[in-house]
Amino acid sequence: MHVGLVGLGKMGANMRTRMREHGLEVTGYDRNPEVSDVAELSDLVAALPAGDRVIWVMVPAGEPTRSTVSALRDLLDEGDLVIDGGNSHYSEDAANAATLAERGIRYVDVGVSGGVWGLENGYGLMAGGDAADIDAAMPIFDALRPPGDRDGGFVHAGPVGAGHYVKMVHNGIEYGVMQAYAEGYELLTAADLVHDVTGTLKAWTHGTVIRSWLLELLVAALEQDPGLDSIDDFVSDSGEGRWTVDEAIDHAVPAPVISAALFARFASRQGDSPAMKAVAALRHQFGGHAVQPAADG
Amino acid sequence: MHVGLVGLGKMGANMRTRMREHGLEVTGYDRNPEVSDVAELSDLVAALPAGDRVIWVMVPAGEPTRSTVSALRDLLDEGDLVIDGGNSHYSEDAANAATLAERGIRYVDVGVSGGVWGLENGYGLMAGGDAADIDAAMPIFDALRPPGDRDGGFVHAGPVGAGHYVKMVHNGIEYGVMQAYAEGYELLTAADLVHDVTGTLKAWTHGTVIRSWLLELLVAALEQDPGLDSIDDFVSDSGEGRWTVDEAIDHAVPAPVISAALFARFASRQGDSPAMKAVAALRHQFGGHAVQPAADG
Amino acid sequence: MHVGLVGLGKMGANMRTRMREHGLEVTGYDRNPEVSDVAELSDLVAALPAGDRVIWVMVPAGEPTRSTVSALRDLLDEGDLVIDGGNSHYSEDAANAATLAERGIRYVDVGVSGGVWGLENGYGLMAGGDAADIDAAMPIFDALRPPGDRDGGFVHAGPVGAGHYVKMVHNGIEYGVMQAYAEGYELLTAADLVHDVTGTLKAWTHGTVIRSWLLELLVAALEQDPGLDSIDDFVSDSGEGRWTVDEAIDHAVPAPVISAALFARFASRQGDSPAMKAVAALRHQFGGHAVQPAADG
Amino acid sequence: MHVGLVGLGKMGANMRTRMREHGLEVTGYDRNPEVSDVAELSDLVAALPAGDRVIWVMVPAGEPTRSTVSALRDLLDEGDLVIDGGNSHYSEDAANAATLAERGIRYVDVGVSGGVWGLENGYGLMAGGDAADIDAAMPIFDALRPPGDRDGGFVHAGPVGAGHYVKMVHNGIEYGVMQAYAEGYELLTAADLVHDVTGTLKAWTHGTVIRSWLLELLVAALEQDPGLDSIDDFVSDSGEGRWTVDEAIDHAVPAPVISAALFARFASRQGDSPAMKAVAALRHQFGGHAVQPAADG
Repeated sequence: MHVGLVGLGKMGANMRTRMREHGLEVTGYDRNPEVSDVAELSDLVAALPAGDRVIWVMVPAGEPTRSTVSALRDLLDEGDLVIDGGNSHYSEDAANAATLAERGIRYVDVGVSGGVWGLENGYGLMAGGDAADIDAAMPIFDALRPPGDRDGGFVHAGPVGAGHYVKMVHNGIEYGVMQAYAEGYELLTAADLVHDVTGTLKAWTHGTVIRSWLLELLVAALEQDPGLDSIDDFVSDSGEGRWTVDEAIDHAVPAPVISAALFARFASRQGDSPAMKAVAALRHQFGGHAVQPAADG
Repeated sequence: MHVGLVGLGKMGANMRTRMREHGLEVTGYDRNPEVSDVAELSDLVAALPAGDRVIWVMVPAGEPTRSTVSALRDLLDEGDLVIDGGNSHYSEDAANAATLAERGIRYVDVGVSGGVWGLENGYGLMAGGDAADIDAAMPIFDALRPPGDRDGGFVHAGPVGAGHYVKMVHNGIEYGVMQAYAEGYELLTAADLVHDVTGTLKAWTHGTVIRSWLLELLVAALEQDPGLDSIDDFVSDSGEGRWTVDEAIDHAVPAPVISAALFARFASRQGDSPAMKAVAALRHQFGGHAVQPAADG
Repeated sequence: MHVGLVGLGKMGANMRTRMREHGLEVTGYDRNPEVSDVAELSDLVAALPAGDRVIWVMVPAGEPTRSTVSALRDLLDEGDLVIDGGNSHYSEDAANAATLAERGIRYVDVGVSGGVWGLENGYGLMAGGDAADIDAAMPIFDALRPPGDRDGGFVHAGPVGAGHYVKMVHNGIEYGVMQAYAEGYELLTAADLVHDVTGTLKAWTHGTVIRSWLLELLVAALEQDPGLDSIDDFVSDSGEGRWTVDEAIDHAVPAPVISAALFARFASRQGDSPAMKAVAALRHQFGGHAVQPAADG
Repeated sequence: MHVGLVGLGKMGANMRTRMREHGLEVTGYDRNPEVSDVAELSDLVAALPAGDRVIWVMVPAGEPTRSTVSALRDLLDEGDLVIDGGNSHYSEDAANAATLAERGIRYVDVGVSGGVWGLENGYGLMAGGDAADIDAAMPIFDALRPPGDRDGGFVHAGPVGAGHYVKMVHNGIEYGVMQAYAEGYELLTAADLVHDVTGTLKAWTHGTVIRSWLLELLVAALEQDPGLDSIDDFVSDSGEGRWTVDEAIDHAVPAPVISAALFARFASRQGDSPAMKAVAALRHQFGGHAVQPAADG
């Protein structure tokens, strides 16, 4: 199978490598000529069989993905298939599919998890779209996913949009799980009793109820830098946690843990918290004036 | 009525003033001779009628209160009454009452709210103990509480311990209410649309559903220092919020708001958060190595 | 001043009454002829001076408000002023203003708080728009707001949209404050020590740090029904709490308390929680099978 | 090595089996004669070499463990070693160690994780105590822990108490992680887009960032009962989550996620929530009277 791959950033380049290692022919295009296999997007299109093309888009969500989809609509032919493997919000998928459907081009959305480790271990894949379109792309999914049974590492979750929806939820869970480990880690560091924090986390990686890949990563981080002295406590977010909480609100689903994890990230990035200044000001107010310690509260 | 008052810190001194303004005779004792009316605690005891003494203790919770109660046990006579008006944990009250009961001395616990404004406005009072003992102290309660009907500003909440229990809950609520206003304040400052933050809060003090005394204090703080530039976002806690959450856990009562307010204070005081370093480290790990921005999450 | 008022539901009808009591002439229109002063919206428009009309819209947010604004655009004249006093999301205001500006009609948005008590006490008002337009409507604001200084109960918060924005934040705060009192109330009921729950809350209404109008309402509810036996623990939400949390997420403002209050409402409405079923299932899984009590966790 | 094992409930019996499978001689005692190897605790003591005995205690935390330790103090000899493998609060360990030290008996505490799966997979073990005592018990730890390197599945975390401390933190993390998955699961079920919820969770077990053993258990539960219809949404807690939050509060460590998970369990067990009745009552109050829908909030 000959695949077109648009977007050769870290994730895209790794996926090209893994596809090739699994016997697929890949032509990749990126705006950066140093990593691109072809000069122009149209060259990539020309290299593939008209009406039977499969093109995986792996560019940033939002405007970059939308403009790539628009460009492909103008370049592709009826029957070709576009797969958005980026981190688009699921609500974009219907619009992308409609754009392409104007010219009879098919569309599948895929959520991809695994980070840089996917190159070696395989990526967890969650697809949305018509069954026939998903079947057409199955050789790619089989190349990218981890070895073993297909249903461990791959799912056809539902119609167009479902792939990105479940990837969003996956990332929301990720926020909560990471914060749970992080709170536990802090409790270990806070207790004089615990003399071996890294060893404790490492012991938890086998046999315990909370063993997981994220826990192994935390052990790896601590083995590299016990105390995490080289790491700033500033935590970014790429948006999917926000989307998950927005979605919970829309569906009236209680999400206290995922939202708490999200807000902890927001707080980690504040140099100065207006809210906590207000609380401090209130305490000063009932202490009478600012220079006195508050008597109450 | 002649009252003995032990502890003449900011709160105790103000209460002495308010009691005298309301016609009570007060003899106050403090370790600090500059504010004390008598040289020794025994002098205070000697100034009051044996077997009919009423002594209000207003010293810090814990060891200072316990040792004051012990000293009074040795100095007082059967039938005398001791009132703990400090911020003791309610579990201390049974022990204090038992200590005094060894010699037939009566005991009442009172939670006091109002901060430095209580001198002028009156204090909110919550009492625990036997009805007869509470009645004996009623002239003091009537002096300290706000004017108007007695049941606005005073309650006999239950047996010994009940006064401090409900004061603890009062303070837990206070944490939650303050944090709610603080989050709203931050949202006002975050929006370009809102040109008059202080004016908005001031408008809320009349007619709206959220009007309250704390809101008026926040307006006062902002009128003194718009932007709260002189206020650090470091928020202390005096322990009663912790006790409230501990109590919620003991009773299996969900307390998501009060605990969130407590944890926000904890976070406000951390120079560096081990938990958030751990989350940042995890994100770096699935980005492959620390110097790369994480691709996922 | 002669005001047109569109929407005579509970809030609108009360506001008509209050405006009239404060000397304004009011012509009200409602689809329900039993409460309407005129037969058609066009009759209301005809009753007012062209180019100098002031029309207050008090209909449900969303489609009803949008269609009312559209209808007014077609009926009004250049220079007339429309005020949206409903609970619109602030993002609707720019669109409404633009719709009306097509024909030179002016627009102000006003957030209104106070519920049914506003008729008697006055309403808290938060306005957004141009200063000249707000000035034009000031006789209405002065009639509706509580007595006393104008800046207690009224604010011109910013340009179009600011009124609804700050009303949204007001309601978000309201969620948090109510939940804080509610958690405290539950803690009072959970403790055997507290013999007088209603009396405790009533005592808190004077002198304490947490005194507020909402606390007075809670006392009123308990005086009518101690134990709240007639009240279901099902709590609706009218959407403004959701909007507040969405807004916090957009601005990366931590809102742990307001979101916890929102999620508590969501949970209160669930007959059966899929999430908690999943947690129960997990506990059963590591206990081996469902009929055994879980050994861990 | 010949081990004495006190307590042959589900966990204890499984551990006896695993120890025997790994070549240890085990004499077990339980109050239930049907599962016990000996008639009396003293028989178990008599079967082991005086001064070199190793006795693993696996009985419920609190009084049962304390009374077992007391009984062993009276029965054992100087130099013998007692290991508490139950779920004791870490603060009990110093007392237990002191009780035994009165007669020169050594003490180690061990947190054990793995549930019923530990029999087959091995148990995660976290030990506290003196290095020499831990070394003496190492054959038992090696029998119980999972195969592979010792430091995956076993840690000497610190002095007496450290084993139970880190087990407590482990369980607190477990609460947070389970709740994160549960919230994500509910979001999958809430979306019409997702046609294959179980398949999605199964796909996540390989390749994704959130793969874990708990996720595999959730898939197993759903494969047995899609929709979890046989599972009640009532979630118990065995106390270690409460202890973790208490500990966080003592150390001023923010624990928003672990506490949110704990409170979600509390709420799951409430037939009727006093707090939410109070919120509903408040909403009715500003709607004027209970039978009207609230206009605000």
